[in-house]
Amino acid sequence: MYKLIHQDHGARRGEFHTPHGVIQTPVFQNVGTAAAIKGAVSTGDLKELGCQVQLSNTYHLHLRPGDKLIKELGGLHRFMNWDRPILTDSGGFQVFSLASLRKITEEGVRFQSHIDGQRIFMGPEESMQIQSNLGSTIAMAFDECVENPAPYDYVKRSCERTYRWLCRCKEEMKRLNSLPDTINKQQMLFGINQGGIFDDLRVWHMKEIAKLDLPGYAIGGLAVGESHEEMYHILDMVLPHAPENKPRYLMGVGTPSNIIEAVARGVDFFDCVMPSRNARHAFIFTRHGTMNLLNQKYERDMQPIDPECGCEACRNYSRAYIRHLFKAKEMLAMRLSVIHNLYFFNELMERIRQAIMEDRFEQFRRDNVEKLAKRL
Amino acid sequence: MYKLIHQDHGARRGEFHTPHGVIQTPVFQNVGTAAAIKGAVSTGDLKELGCQVQLSNTYHLHLRPGDKLIKELGGLHRFMNWDRPILTDSGGFQVFSLASLRKITEEGVRFQSHIDGQRIFMGPEESMQIQSNLGSTIAMAFDECVENPAPYDYVKRSCERTYRWLCRCKEEMKRLNSLPDTINKQQMLFGINQGGIFDDLRVWHMKEIAKLDLPGYAIGGLAVGESHEEMYHILDMVLPHAPENKPRYLMGVGTPSNIIEAVARGVDFFDCVMPSRNARHAFIFTRHGTMNLLNQKYERDMQPIDPECGCEACRNYSRAYIRHLFKAKEMLAMRLSVIHNLYFFNELMERIRQAIMEDRFEQFRRDNVEKLAKRL
Repeated sequence: MYKLIHQDHGARRGEFHTPHGVIQTPVFQNVGTAAAIKGAVSTGDLKELGCQVQLSNTYHLHLRPGDKLIKELGGLHRFMNWDRPILTDSGGFQVFSLASLRKITEEGVRFQSHIDGQRIFMGPEESMQIQSNLGSTIAMAFDECVENPAPYDYVKRSCERTYRWLCRCKEEMKRLNSLPDTINKQQMLFGINQGGIFDDLRVWHMKEIAKLDLPGYAIGGLAVGESHEEMYHILDMVLPHAPENKPRYLMGVGTPSNIIEAVARGVDFFDCVMPSRNARHAFIFTRHGTMNLLNQKYERDMQPIDPECGCEACRNYSRAYIRHLFKAKEMLAMRLSVIHNLYFFNELMERIRQAIMEDRFEQFRRDNVEKLAKRL
Repeated sequence: MYKLIHQDHGARRGEFHTPHGVIQTPVFQNVGTAAAIKGAVSTGDLKELGCQVQLSNTYHLHLRPGDKLIKELGGLHRFMNWDRPILTDSGGFQVFSLASLRKITEEGVRFQSHIDGQRIFMGPEESMQIQSNLGSTIAMAFDECVENPAPYDYVKRSCERTYRWLCRCKEEMKRLNSLPDTINKQQMLFGINQGGIFDDLRVWHMKEIAKLDLPGYAIGGLAVGESHEEMYHILDMVLPHAPENKPRYLMGVGTPSNIIEAVARGVDFFDCVMPSRNARHAFIFTRHGTMNLLNQKYERDMQPIDPECGCEACRNYSRAYIRHLFKAKEMLAMRLSVIHNLYFFNELMERIRQAIMEDRFEQFRRDNVEKLAKRL
């Protein structure tokens, strides 16, 4: 289902065909945790700002409103009125970062809900069942995401178990996709590579999961404590062992510069809460660098955030106005800023795709990696 | 500048010509306190939901970001990117309801900012200067709004002073409109009728202010403690003494039923925070009555809030989804609900205008006054 269209050094320009439409890669997935983008951004807005794939969180939706309810109402696409691809994570990351009183066994994880303290069990089968109920386009494997750095022995045992869990995920998804009342019978499972910052574990794990011939592969357990250099090093080690004819997804990454560096190494899918979370704190991305709109120097600045940007905020409102909205604690401040940052990330990917097609990605990388990280 | 197009019993269908365009009356003004509608609704959204006039608050904008800053940046229209009429209140109501340590003298009011405790003086001249800096289309007179019920003697002294303040407002506005650097040299002043719930004071005051030949007249000091019946009674007493060739504005009112009853008595302008404030608490207006979206019965309800409604929320999202957004504390819940309620109020006015034009307003009133107040 992945078609490599063009390669420019390590960077790949591809198409990923799904029952909900074709995804042009490299792609940035926009994170709508609880079936909505934080900052009062709707699925209609997402279409306008060029979002191709929305990512929703299995853990959150399982707790509220409940995946069974969403299935009963026709699945997540219908529930939030979004007809393009949706990727759901496995719930694993949230179980390990949000829930309390976790107990991990071979079976899965027992934990308490962060909302009401309810005791819940989630293993590979439960994660697949929930994601099947949601009916997402792409389901992620249930894995353990270990924070970096962690002891070698623990990471080894963990990623061996994550491999066994992946085999169970694959079996369960096959079963679920064959049931008569399944919402999306073509739901695709992506495996997740783990192994901390240990080259041998990472490579062993990637080789093993590659054999399962899944529709796509993610690199998980990065951007959770290690340095950027360690992250790029892991990508350099692991990606040569990822199947070439499958998309590669670097989970939870990252800054514009991280994305460009990862694309250079052959990554196709990204997601991150950074554009929307930072926007809600007046931290803005532009093609000239980053800005903090609360800065006094913008008080009288009637320019748009970025005069070259085509987003709703930049087409209509000034830095001075949006800064005032933040100061006055008006929600509209967050909405306009989130729209801008998401537009910027989606457009950045479009610019990356064009640069690859025109064999000038290395130049694009040199021109932008430092510039985009600059504080204006 | 007010043109009466058609009258159906007491209800008036008119046009109010302003330098920022023609206002079709009866009209509901949408309240954007701090130069933005609460609930992440932008001026672009306001155009889509049929808003004709935006109301902003002098007191809030004086404190933050400051009217001098707004003047320096080209005025409120430019600041918030809105080219239709803007009405600014005088600040009086907020001084009396939000500020602390108030001291009223013949000169004006000394008070402390509710934001930072700063000591501020505001009298008729200051209010006009601030509104002139904002450059609104319509400026409201600086008055004292007395909460109902209040002792006769106090109300009498207060509305006599409010009359003297109005004379000073008129002088000051004339002066300001003639200055070379004034943003809107055609700014219009509306007088405000006061007098509590005392017929004789109300009528005396209206007769006096009518003589000043202002572009419009408001009824203030209602919906501040008295019953609906008392409010309608005051309108019955006062409106016959308001100039026929000037618009009449009932400040801070109200429910759909209040609006219909007031239109029946000859009111042309309305404003109220109710549609946006209630929406933010999941309280929704529809043409069949009101609903609380948090109600359990909407958990599985995949209908729009109102299947006949043409707003962005009703065209795209279900009751179940918006209810979920409220439960998950997603800002998008508020945005969609505010958009719906404001659309409903603006469309209600359009339906009222049509009914008047077609000489069936009394029928419309009978059909709707009770229905719109019903809890679904």
